[in-house]
Amino acid sequence: MQRSKTNDKRVLVIGLGRFGSSLALELVAHGWEVLGMDSSPRLVQAYADALTHTVVADATDDEALRQIGAQEFTRAVVAIGTHLEESILATSLLVDMGVPHIWAKAVSRRHGRILQQIGAHHVVLPEHDMGERVAHLVSGRMLDFVELEEDFALGKTRAPRELIGLKLGESGIRSKHGITVVCIKRHGEQFTYATAETVPQKGDVIVVAGKTNDVERFAEIS
Amino acid sequence: MQRSKTNDKRVLVIGLGRFGSSLALELVAHGWEVLGMDSSPRLVQAYADALTHTVVADATDDEALRQIGAQEFTRAVVAIGTHLEESILATSLLVDMGVPHIWAKAVSRRHGRILQQIGAHHVVLPEHDMGERVAHLVSGRMLDFVELEEDFALGKTRAPRELIGLKLGESGIRSKHGITVVCIKRHGEQFTYATAETVPQKGDVIVVAGKTNDVERFAEIS
Amino acid sequence: MQRSKTNDKRVLVIGLGRFGSSLALELVAHGWEVLGMDSSPRLVQAYADALTHTVVADATDDEALRQIGAQEFTRAVVAIGTHLEESILATSLLVDMGVPHIWAKAVSRRHGRILQQIGAHHVVLPEHDMGERVAHLVSGRMLDFVELEEDFALGKTRAPRELIGLKLGESGIRSKHGITVVCIKRHGEQFTYATAETVPQKGDVIVVAGKTNDVERFAEIS
Amino acid sequence: MQRSKTNDKRVLVIGLGRFGSSLALELVAHGWEVLGMDSSPRLVQAYADALTHTVVADATDDEALRQIGAQEFTRAVVAIGTHLEESILATSLLVDMGVPHIWAKAVSRRHGRILQQIGAHHVVLPEHDMGERVAHLVSGRMLDFVELEEDFALGKTRAPRELIGLKLGESGIRSKHGITVVCIKRHGEQFTYATAETVPQKGDVIVVAGKTNDVERFAEIS
Amino acid sequence: MQRSKTNDKRVLVIGLGRFGSSLALELVAHGWEVLGMDSSPRLVQAYADALTHTVVADATDDEALRQIGAQEFTRAVVAIGTHLEESILATSLLVDMGVPHIWAKAVSRRHGRILQQIGAHHVVLPEHDMGERVAHLVSGRMLDFVELEEDFALGKTRAPRELIGLKLGESGIRSKHGITVVCIKRHGEQFTYATAETVPQKGDVIVVAGKTNDVERFAEIS
Amino acid sequence: MQRSKTNDKRVLVIGLGRFGSSLALELVAHGWEVLGMDSSPRLVQAYADALTHTVVADATDDEALRQIGAQEFTRAVVAIGTHLEESILATSLLVDMGVPHIWAKAVSRRHGRILQQIGAHHVVLPEHDMGERVAHLVSGRMLDFVELEEDFALGKTRAPRELIGLKLGESGIRSKHGITVVCIKRHGEQFTYATAETVPQKGDVIVVAGKTNDVERFAEIS
Amino acid sequence: MQRSKTNDKRVLVIGLGRFGSSLALELVAHGWEVLGMDSSPRLVQAYADALTHTVVADATDDEALRQIGAQEFTRAVVAIGTHLEESILATSLLVDMGVPHIWAKAVSRRHGRILQQIGAHHVVLPEHDMGERVAHLVSGRMLDFVELEEDFALGKTRAPRELIGLKLGESGIRSKHGITVVCIKRHGEQFTYATAETVPQKGDVIVVAGKTNDVERFAEIS
Amino acid sequence: MQRSKTNDKRVLVIGLGRFGSSLALELVAHGWEVLGMDSSPRLVQAYADALTHTVVADATDDEALRQIGAQEFTRAVVAIGTHLEESILATSLLVDMGVPHIWAKAVSRRHGRILQQIGAHHVVLPEHDMGERVAHLVSGRMLDFVELEEDFALGKTRAPRELIGLKLGESGIRSKHGITVVCIKRHGEQFTYATAETVPQKGDVIVVAGKTNDVERFAEIS
Repeated sequence: MQRSKTNDKRVLVIGLGRFGSSLALELVAHGWEVLGMDSSPRLVQAYADALTHTVVADATDDEALRQIGAQEFTRAVVAIGTHLEESILATSLLVDMGVPHIWAKAVSRRHGRILQQIGAHHVVLPEHDMGERVAHLVSGRMLDFVELEEDFALGKTRAPRELIGLKLGESGIRSKHGITVVCIKRHGEQFTYATAETVPQKGDVIVVAGKTNDVERFAEIS
Repeated sequence: MQRSKTNDKRVLVIGLGRFGSSLALELVAHGWEVLGMDSSPRLVQAYADALTHTVVADATDDEALRQIGAQEFTRAVVAIGTHLEESILATSLLVDMGVPHIWAKAVSRRHGRILQQIGAHHVVLPEHDMGERVAHLVSGRMLDFVELEEDFALGKTRAPRELIGLKLGESGIRSKHGITVVCIKRHGEQFTYATAETVPQKGDVIVVAGKTNDVERFAEIS
Repeated sequence: MQRSKTNDKRVLVIGLGRFGSSLALELVAHGWEVLGMDSSPRLVQAYADALTHTVVADATDDEALRQIGAQEFTRAVVAIGTHLEESILATSLLVDMGVPHIWAKAVSRRHGRILQQIGAHHVVLPEHDMGERVAHLVSGRMLDFVELEEDFALGKTRAPRELIGLKLGESGIRSKHGITVVCIKRHGEQFTYATAETVPQKGDVIVVAGKTNDVERFAEIS
Repeated sequence: MQRSKTNDKRVLVIGLGRFGSSLALELVAHGWEVLGMDSSPRLVQAYADALTHTVVADATDDEALRQIGAQEFTRAVVAIGTHLEESILATSLLVDMGVPHIWAKAVSRRHGRILQQIGAHHVVLPEHDMGERVAHLVSGRMLDFVELEEDFALGKTRAPRELIGLKLGESGIRSKHGITVVCIKRHGEQFTYATAETVPQKGDVIVVAGKTNDVERFAEIS
Repeated sequence: MQRSKTNDKRVLVIGLGRFGSSLALELVAHGWEVLGMDSSPRLVQAYADALTHTVVADATDDEALRQIGAQEFTRAVVAIGTHLEESILATSLLVDMGVPHIWAKAVSRRHGRILQQIGAHHVVLPEHDMGERVAHLVSGRMLDFVELEEDFALGKTRAPRELIGLKLGESGIRSKHGITVVCIKRHGEQFTYATAETVPQKGDVIVVAGKTNDVERFAEIS
Repeated sequence: MQRSKTNDKRVLVIGLGRFGSSLALELVAHGWEVLGMDSSPRLVQAYADALTHTVVADATDDEALRQIGAQEFTRAVVAIGTHLEESILATSLLVDMGVPHIWAKAVSRRHGRILQQIGAHHVVLPEHDMGERVAHLVSGRMLDFVELEEDFALGKTRAPRELIGLKLGESGIRSKHGITVVCIKRHGEQFTYATAETVPQKGDVIVVAGKTNDVERFAEIS
Repeated sequence: MQRSKTNDKRVLVIGLGRFGSSLALELVAHGWEVLGMDSSPRLVQAYADALTHTVVADATDDEALRQIGAQEFTRAVVAIGTHLEESILATSLLVDMGVPHIWAKAVSRRHGRILQQIGAHHVVLPEHDMGERVAHLVSGRMLDFVELEEDFALGKTRAPRELIGLKLGESGIRSKHGITVVCIKRHGEQFTYATAETVPQKGDVIVVAGKTNDVERFAEIS
Repeated sequence: MQRSKTNDKRVLVIGLGRFGSSLALELVAHGWEVLGMDSSPRLVQAYADALTHTVVADATDDEALRQIGAQEFTRAVVAIGTHLEESILATSLLVDMGVPHIWAKAVSRRHGRILQQIGAHHVVLPEHDMGERVAHLVSGRMLDFVELEEDFALGKTRAPRELIGLKLGESGIRSKHGITVVCIKRHGEQFTYATAETVPQKGDVIVVAGKTNDVERFAEIS
């Protein structure tokens, strides 16, 4: 599998559990070439048809990683979750091989910290992040919520009564609530972008952007 | 803990693992009253100070759930992940108690399907969803990606060369790429909403909205 | 194994433990075609000769169920007992495949409730039901007991002294005890039906029908 | 707990699993005094309120059985199922103590044979017996089925077309099918006994008695 | 391996642990034909060369026992020690097959009692019996001790001072101690039988016979 | 428990399993003072009443052995069987403490060899020795067999036809078979010693002494 | 335990297995104040008397480390060996607390590499290092061997014949073998330093210094 | 592998864990022929290329050891660490085979004592020895430390201020501190031997020899 790194559309995914397999399948669906690797023959077989290449190998074994050409990849994802030790060993090996873009999944903040100390370039905490995200939905007002950056979030919610029948540009919503309506979805239609001329109606779903606190507060009054 | 359900800002969180605890802490941070429950004394003790109430109890035991007043809650989250059986039993009990809003975490699509068959109102698949979301970032172009609905997504990316120096309203980006720039972040500043007058500069980060495919394709040319 | 569903005398039996194997063998003995399935090669081999077809497969695997043609069956029995999770997963898959008659074995009332919530058509609790049934025999008076419906039971017992030598029609047993003698077995002979002319003798065994309480009380005086 | 054996309404139930607990609760419901015993403190506590007496003890320990007065009981049920060894040891001890009526649950025919060799007076095979019983229901015609003796059975089924509108005494059902209708249940009513004058109507449920084969064949034509 | 039972010098040894293998090897050394059977391939292989025949099979499986022709043997030894359950099941099967001479090893008196209840003809308790035998040696006076019957034992000991230089027939040892000297071993020579003329010398080892208590007491004075 | 070693009738028994407990009970029955020691509180409690002293302690812990005064004993038995490691450690400690008479139980010849290399004075192999001993009984002719020394054995057997009615002194049995009849037991009576005048009768049981091979061969002709 | 870091003679030793306990005891013997910590109460109790302070705590728990004042120590040793994960977590926590001198034990080169990536200041590989050291002794010529640096070693060996009776300064040993004799031990005396005047005699043991290869080669000719 | 024992450069290494494999590799690097043996196929395969010969075998099996020709070796290393039992069994077998030079690794002093009692010629305690050695480094002054004999040690340390600029022969260091400087290493250079003329400079590293206490004390003042 050796080839030039230019325009490299290949990803090495180590660990084919829930997270790793979902990620790998999504990449394949978008035209990427994925080498899926796991120490479990059962998991590897389960994804043998769906992924470009699969291999049963021990990601904590330097030699095994070299034989599958791990050092040739520009991008690798360490999706090992349950066994901290294996996650750390595999990441350490990839770092020493000089793989330029390493994503690693962590199960705790400390695990994430160690992965960064070792040299992982991106650390993901699925359980933790989804826990925080779902917390905003449990209130029953917000339909979806994503924090794109520290203190900047998007929220999906029903259009509140005070917006119904008014042009967004004239509703004073920005000055009053600190948020902007960026998309809108009429009942039975698709989402579309919102403009100053858009007039929300009863039952419309809107996506608003703004500071995290402002988005949360706005959802409350919806 | 019995009280009127009007303006009920209480949530029962069953299972204090990674997902459940992150969710519970986030809710407390936003002023909600959380009763955290787990069968593990170690986990319950770990969150005893941070959550409003905590209790060691077996969520698969009808009597135990009644003693903590589970039937009084308007909102409950079944955050048990590892043991399918416990997740299903606890959800079944809450459904039969008539709790009106039940979120349940699933580890697989089939698990999610069963939770719905039993009567859970919302099902969350953290590992799976995050796997798909991170897949869009591994390409190295997209900085963040969220699918808000089937076929409608938001993507965070660097402003592509073809937008630099042009007013968004005049750039033809909507007709050409099918997406809308909804927010923009100048280097060193905060995110803000984008208007037709906004002129992206080199290094700006933008959030675009549109059909999933269009957002993905746009990130490629960025 | 695809064929028309008309006059379908085929049954899929998932799980070949004590309950499942006894059930499957009884069906074969009555001319039914049984496909026995279990994840244990040892159990499958043990019944390979006795059942029409046997297969080693994982009943929690959608693909595996389809390959054996589970969706073609009109009748299926989920006889998995020990592992709640597998029992629930297999039942959920069969329900989604549209199998019209699904029996499922449960180990507890809650388990049974979940199987019904998911869509099983009949739920059986062997340990529980036999426990209740045997309870009526431990008293030493009743020889067998079956509750056919809520509050209607059959009891096998020795003919009590007050019936000996009297025609049943003249014994006043119905008005006095609320029960009817429906069958009788003379010592050393076979059971036969009882009529108003039947005269019980010492040592005869009778089957009485009536409300559960009445049958129980009658056995006491026997 | 020492007392005279006359009119002894006490039962020792060893093993409080599914079978044992169902049996014990049913006995208590009918006014018996039950001493429930198990080596698991969790199970004993679960039934501490519902049973007359409960004790945590090891039924394979001669001394422990004597201390709870096992030798004073007239009736004992060994409801230990999972561990063959414990079941056999406990039964052997009760036999040597001279308990006059010992019921023992077996998980296989061989287990049942050994219990009889050792001296148990009654052996029950719940999983096995229920498996055979349910086999008769899977056909979809029979609603319930019980074999009261070798070759004499009762079957619950819908009244077949050929009986509708005819007096049972004139229907010739006994000579034609070898079975007798012993009980009948009109739609929306309770079960009652059937006489020669009874005229089944469409939708009635009947209980028939007869040789096992005849009952099975009759259910087919229903 | 079917053949006439006349002059049958074949033994079936089930279980090739310490006890079973020592027994089997000793039998082979004396010209017996031994079929050694164990469920452990490792143990069977270890004795494949030393025993006449060996087979890996599950002694709790009726069919397996028949296939190796267990019912053809006149003598069988159930040398399974650790797993009570297997020991009991195998013995029960051999009894039902009508094997005329069954030895079974027990690990406790209760185990032994059950084996007898089931129908084993001889029960051996190696750990227990050797424990009692060695107890007589720990005193430091007795060199070996065997109880041949209830209250009749043989003891090996050094000739006590009071016997040295006297003809046994004139020593009065029988009337004084209740024991008889049956064998004697002069220092550096072999054992031989003792007569009334035998004159023990200092350092001679003798074997005495008598009531258990008398033998024990005699050893004390030696 | 410190006292003078003169006339010391105390034994330390380490390990209260089958072998150790049988040995300890037998010693107590003969008036010895036994300190029983085991790391299992359950076993120690089981023998707390029957033995002179009992203690829960870890025999592989030097300090623990000293605290119970192991170094004060003249006799110790290491009856630990299952765990080779513990058996060896405990024996090594007793040797270094200078206990003058150490018996140790081994489970294999190699284990026995190691115990001797370390310094145990007597090594016993119960399973092995009993296996060999029982082998002589399986033939069905010999009733008991003990090898007292390399190549000198005692055998219990029925008097053979050729001895019936003859005085032993005149039967020529010694010259013909190389064995001596040392004891005899008339049907219904006790064993007694045999003399030249003894005349065996049909049904008598005799004990013969001689070279191992001769005893075995003689039993064959019995 | 808070105090100024000047002249700090305190060490935190995490993990009291073979390595950690030996190290801790040696430090105490040289006047250091040692806080020994382990998650095993058994180990902590074993060293409670011998070490200055001991505590049962989980070294992977940030809070627990802070409560014992880990951040106050100038020197810490992570002597956890078996569980890679715990070793890495504990080291990561100490690094983030800013402990200035951290020694960590590794079980493999990769483990050592990770500990360094995380920030441990010194990594020790006992099994590995001792393996290499002992390799030099197995040849039977070298009595001890230590490599003090890459390519500089000390070797203990018997004085070779070619040195006997010559003044070291005149023996030409440096030019011929590239090594220097630094210490010498006359039979029955103590080691002392060697000078140019020292005359080795037969049987003397010497310590030589030099390049690793030269030391090894010199030992061969000894 | 049979050959004459003269000039035998072969070593048998039993156990290829950390210690054993490091030792074996070091021996091979110095031209020795190593037969590496382990019961784990995984470990044996890992070193199959690096060692002269490798074999998967059970070192506690007499026959297995003979088949690989263990009795032909002049030198053997028992590097089994975790399982005391296996370590002892293997050593015992080698001793009985008469292997003249046996090194054995122990995990505790008692384990070491037993290995010596059995007959091992050299016992090594890696964890323990390295623990003591590292203890001298934790102080921060000493750079390395080795005790070559009871009460004679070498220490690597920085040259103390009081030696800087003085000829060693004139510094009075021997009389004042009881130690001798035997080697010195100038910053950026290699180690070399020290003479009376050597003048240490700031930053030089020296190796000193002397009584253990003197070396330790000297390092303190450095």
